[in-house]
Amino acid sequence: MPLVRIDVVAGRSDEQLRTLADTVQQCMLEVFAAPERDRYQIVTEHPPGRMIVEDTGLGIERSDGLVLIQVTQQGRDTAQKQALYAALAERLHEAVGLRPEDLVVSVVENTKADWSFGHGRAQFLTGEL
Amino acid sequence: MPLVRIDVVAGRSDEQLRTLADTVQQCMLEVFAAPERDRYQIVTEHPPGRMIVEDTGLGIERSDGLVLIQVTQQGRDTAQKQALYAALAERLHEAVGLRPEDLVVSVVENTKADWSFGHGRAQFLTGEL
Amino acid sequence: MPLVRIDVVAGRSDEQLRTLADTVQQCMLEVFAAPERDRYQIVTEHPPGRMIVEDTGLGIERSDGLVLIQVTQQGRDTAQKQALYAALAERLHEAVGLRPEDLVVSVVENTKADWSFGHGRAQFLTGEL
Repeated sequence: MPLVRIDVVAGRSDEQLRTLADTVQQCMLEVFAAPERDRYQIVTEHPPGRMIVEDTGLGIERSDGLVLIQVTQQGRDTAQKQALYAALAERLHEAVGLRPEDLVVSVVENTKADWSFGHGRAQFLTGEL
Repeated sequence: MPLVRIDVVAGRSDEQLRTLADTVQQCMLEVFAAPERDRYQIVTEHPPGRMIVEDTGLGIERSDGLVLIQVTQQGRDTAQKQALYAALAERLHEAVGLRPEDLVVSVVENTKADWSFGHGRAQFLTGEL
Repeated sequence: MPLVRIDVVAGRSDEQLRTLADTVQQCMLEVFAAPERDRYQIVTEHPPGRMIVEDTGLGIERSDGLVLIQVTQQGRDTAQKQALYAALAERLHEAVGLRPEDLVVSVVENTKADWSFGHGRAQFLTGEL
């Protein structure tokens, strides 16, 4: 169920983008304990200059390798969120060379009633999930 | 007020996309009891491979006809949400032949203070709505 | 930390879009009391017809100059939100000639645990912010 919007600056190959998305999904499965095949991702490329990201005074230097991940989900606690951020930074660095400086993550919470995965049913409420 | 992001894989005609959006809006009016002309939609087409959606093990087979609808709103209860999912699946199938397997819906809740519909005013708070 | 998605109908120059984004950021700094360099914006242009926005019966006439701003943030109160809407309308009108009728704003709330600004850390929780 996490719905994951992955926004990047254009410039990576299709293969790199796929590996990036696959790696994000691995973190959802392992750190967010998402069930198998619980994958809902939208990857969007933006022209240079359309993602404008600074650093809140933290001394983080951004590059055009920037990746912004927005996760809509329900049910994970603070420890899982912190573990997710760490795993994303580490594994995306390994998998696609993402600089940890270029990773921004934001999470939004909803509830079990807020999801329909197909067939017009709310599978968290029907007992299917 | 529902702000509705409709993300699809590229391939439909402009006319089909308009019918799709019109049908989503009909569901907002009838099932979510949105007032007349309460329409705030963004339709975004994505290249193949950029919407990566599996099925959480539910046995749902996706196709490139996939439609992902993210609704930001306030005030609807669980019964209304369930009715929305069902109506979207049924009516989008009728209107544009959308396979019910290809419809994913996610809702996010905010509050009356979180909306300005124009003129820099929060119309839910000023008494205009 | 406000994550700000700015969706517009295509047609403005790069320079106009930059001024628009800069002006939105000024409002975040001054009205939402965001710290210096607390900027996380994604500007997306849409083809005509893909942003379908009516007026909830408020008698607001939209044009293709439409700007829809979705802000994900935590910690601002109702007065700050109302001040933000007013400031955006006024300053975007001054800076890029945006008609106040063409500005729609929607806010979503999350929490301090929901942000990682880089390095895989949750800076609101680590004491860095």
